[in-house]
Amino acid sequence: MNELVNEFEPESRLRELGIVLPPVSAPAGNYVSVVRTGNLVFSSGKAPAAMNGIVPKGKLGREYNSAEGYQLARLACLDLLATLAKELGSLKHIARFIELHGSLNTTADFEDHARVLDGASDLLVEIFGENGLHVRSVIGVHSLRNGVPLTLKATLEVY
Amino acid sequence: MNELVNEFEPESRLRELGIVLPPVSAPAGNYVSVVRTGNLVFSSGKAPAAMNGIVPKGKLGREYNSAEGYQLARLACLDLLATLAKELGSLKHIARFIELHGSLNTTADFEDHARVLDGASDLLVEIFGENGLHVRSVIGVHSLRNGVPLTLKATLEVY
Amino acid sequence: MNELVNEFEPESRLRELGIVLPPVSAPAGNYVSVVRTGNLVFSSGKAPAAMNGIVPKGKLGREYNSAEGYQLARLACLDLLATLAKELGSLKHIARFIELHGSLNTTADFEDHARVLDGASDLLVEIFGENGLHVRSVIGVHSLRNGVPLTLKATLEVY
Repeated sequence: MNELVNEFEPESRLRELGIVLPPVSAPAGNYVSVVRTGNLVFSSGKAPAAMNGIVPKGKLGREYNSAEGYQLARLACLDLLATLAKELGSLKHIARFIELHGSLNTTADFEDHARVLDGASDLLVEIFGENGLHVRSVIGVHSLRNGVPLTLKATLEVY
Repeated sequence: MNELVNEFEPESRLRELGIVLPPVSAPAGNYVSVVRTGNLVFSSGKAPAAMNGIVPKGKLGREYNSAEGYQLARLACLDLLATLAKELGSLKHIARFIELHGSLNTTADFEDHARVLDGASDLLVEIFGENGLHVRSVIGVHSLRNGVPLTLKATLEVY
Repeated sequence: MNELVNEFEPESRLRELGIVLPPVSAPAGNYVSVVRTGNLVFSSGKAPAAMNGIVPKGKLGREYNSAEGYQLARLACLDLLATLAKELGSLKHIARFIELHGSLNTTADFEDHARVLDGASDLLVEIFGENGLHVRSVIGVHSLRNGVPLTLKATLEVY
C-alpha cells in the first residue's frame, strides 16, 4: 500500500451506523480470499455470515422470500467487508468498488433478484457513498456449495 | 478520455448496417451501468431491449428456441452498446472488447448456448471487426430478474 | 512479452508430475480463447478435455459424483493450461493466477462444489506453487453448452 489513503474513514462510518463486522470466514477449498494485481483487488465468492451462530441454508423462493433475501445479501456483503478489512489492513485503502456479482440459489420462477442484491448494494453506498457505487450482475443458480442461499464476489480499486 | 480515438467510426458502421440503437435501459437497482478504472471499462448485466414495446420474458428451450435466442442475444448486445455509447460519449472511444459473459435462462436440458451467444458476438465483430473479438463464457441459469431470457455483461478497453 | 520470465519452469514441473497437456480445444463460437490487456490475461470458458476420445457429458449429482467431478475439474484445467501454453508461447510467461471461476452443471440439491473445484485449484498449486493460488467462485448452473458437466475460466497476470 502506498501512503495515499481515503480521507473518508469507513471504519468510523461503520461505528456511526452501528455495524459490527462478523468474524472473517475461511476459504472453502484450496484458494485465497483476496488477490491484488496493480490497483485492482479481486475477491472470492462469499456467503452470508452466520446469524446467531446459524449458517443460512436454503433457496430464495422456497425457504426465503425477497425481504429475507435482502438481509442475506447484506450479511454476505458484511462477510466480504470483514475479509477486505483483514486482508487490506483497513477499509480505508479502498478507493472504490468496481463490480459486484451475485449468485442466488433460487427456484425456477424467482424474479426478485434485483431487490435481493440491493441488500448488498445499499450497504456499500451507505458506507462508502459514491465510491461504493458499482456495476452489478445477478443470476439465479441451480445450486451452491453447502446449500447456501447466495454468494457475492467483488472487484475493487485500492490505493 | 484522452485525444486518442479509434480512426474507425463505429457509429458510421452502425448506419451502414442499418442498425439503430435502442433507448438506454435504466439499472434495475442501486448500481450504475458502467465503471471505468484505468483503461478498463466494466458493464452491468443487460437484458434484451424491448421489441415493438414488448420486453422479452421466458426461458430458452421453452418459450424461445435457439434461433430466437440468437436474436435475443443480439438485442441484449444492442442494449449494451446503447449504454456504452451514452456513458463513454461515443463508441469510438472503445479500443477493443475483452470479455463477454452470457447468462441464459434455460430449461435443464438446453444445449445450444454457443449458438445463442453468437447473436451478440457476431454483432460485435460486424461493427468493430478484430477489435470486437473477445473471450467468452456462457452458462444456463435457473432464473433471472423479472424472468428475462438472458443477460450479457462485458469488459472492454477504452482510449 | 518482455524479457522478464519466471525462473521457475512450469513445463519442467509438468514433466516431473508426468502430466501431458491435451490438444488445444477450439472456441465453440465466434470468439477467441485468450485476450491480453496490459499484464492481464482473460480466458474463455473451458470444458473438460476428452478422456480416451470421449467428451464428458452429464450432470454432477446424477451422471457424476463429487470424486468424478474433482477429476473433471482437473481435466478442464488441463484444457485451460494447454490453451494458455499455446497462446502465450509458454507457461513460463505466467506471473501468477488471479481468479478461477467454475460453473458446474448440477442437480438442484448438489452441495459439493468446493470439493469439485479443488480438482482445478490443486493442479494449479501443484504446478505453479504460490503463484498458482487464486481467488475463486463456483456456482451450480442449470445447463451448459452441449451438456458438458462443467466449465472453468481464469484471469491471470503475465510477464
